[in-house]
Amino acid sequence: MCKRFLADTVANEIVISGQEHIHLANVLRMTEGDHIVATNNDDYDYECEIIKIGKKETKCKLIQKIKNNHNPKKHIDVFHALIKNDKMSLVTQKLSELGISNLVLFESKFQTVKPSENKQEKLLKISEQSSKQCKRSKIMNISGPVTFKSMLEMLTNYDIIIFANETETATLISNYNEAIQHADKIAIIIGSEGGFELSEIKEIIEKGAISVTLGDRILRAETAAIVLTGYISLLINN
Amino acid sequence: MCKRFLADTVANEIVISGQEHIHLANVLRMTEGDHIVATNNDDYDYECEIIKIGKKETKCKLIQKIKNNHNPKKHIDVFHALIKNDKMSLVTQKLSELGISNLVLFESKFQTVKPSENKQEKLLKISEQSSKQCKRSKIMNISGPVTFKSMLEMLTNYDIIIFANETETATLISNYNEAIQHADKIAIIIGSEGGFELSEIKEIIEKGAISVTLGDRILRAETAAIVLTGYISLLINN
Repeated sequence: MCKRFLADTVANEIVISGQEHIHLANVLRMTEGDHIVATNNDDYDYECEIIKIGKKETKCKLIQKIKNNHNPKKHIDVFHALIKNDKMSLVTQKLSELGISNLVLFESKFQTVKPSENKQEKLLKISEQSSKQCKRSKIMNISGPVTFKSMLEMLTNYDIIIFANETETATLISNYNEAIQHADKIAIIIGSEGGFELSEIKEIIEKGAISVTLGDRILRAETAAIVLTGYISLLINN
Repeated sequence: MCKRFLADTVANEIVISGQEHIHLANVLRMTEGDHIVATNNDDYDYECEIIKIGKKETKCKLIQKIKNNHNPKKHIDVFHALIKNDKMSLVTQKLSELGISNLVLFESKFQTVKPSENKQEKLLKISEQSSKQCKRSKIMNISGPVTFKSMLEMLTNYDIIIFANETETATLISNYNEAIQHADKIAIIIGSEGGFELSEIKEIIEKGAISVTLGDRILRAETAAIVLTGYISLLINN
């Protein structure tokens, strides 16, 4: 099985630089003539041969371009309130494996961390690494943190919006199995460790979100994110 | 909201000792007269008042015994092949939140760790801590590691056995939604990081397990455990 690397460009020549180059050349000690799979955040895997390992970059020759079969089939975005960094790192790794397209971080009133805590750049690196492991060529994008108001404004053009609401007692996610299976574009909303303020809950529901309970035990924020996203991903075979 | 502590006994008097006592007395610095919730791995929460904090134990007086509403409604057991310790710790914490009754560890051919790696005692402590956080009074039990053969012999008396099989391509878990919803006793089988040998897969299926795919991306072992268990737990509102 060929090792996977994120390339800078796959247009005329395939070039791998930065950390990916260092990993290839210095950690894995690959050599000219070795075969690898390069990816470029698009729908394809680029099978290629290493032709030159320089000081700063590795150049490769394309052998064949193959449609990647591990990318998400449908579009699921997760809007996640800021949580502690180690938890957000875990969520990022798992959501990438589960075939999420975009992870959007947002601020909320009961958050327990500063907006600067969840570093976009670091999380994107985790998303890239996780993509390699589960072999998707399109990387889960990370954006934000945006304000709560901006997050609400982004909740348009979704076929269904599922909101993990810890004050909800009646509505189960399974009541919406069929609606979820028929949706092409899905949004999921997850709160911080502190949950949401009642006014925030009201505003989310006013945006058309379906408020669901995740059962009789209060799940940790990161558990809620992974389990709810996993449920939807398995249900629609994303 | 009262703090929760696992008691040694709730029979005639409520006694808290060991680490639970140290946490109550020295870490939280609670005092006589404070109210707490004691649990004893049964169906109840014991609301009580601290009457004496000694050197080695705390004694409490029962105020009221209340049926706990956070315990699992149905019986789900997870049979998990040995995996790295930090991953098994994560799985233990999450499965407890998801309302699993028993987590049974077993050996398999492609495991990458020694049987001594996943310490039952340490995992039980994680299970106890996680129970407190999600307020279940009945603790998820940890057993094993048992041999692969013993694990197979334990797969009796289940209404349905769901097996996360990474060589499966066709059968989705959602094909069995209705059967899962009608089951009272459910088993889930999860492999190690190395997956299963073909002969092991055959033996598991011969035991009547339903082999399901978790989608087009190979999930890490611990992701598979959390996501598949979460799916079933949300589906049946456990």
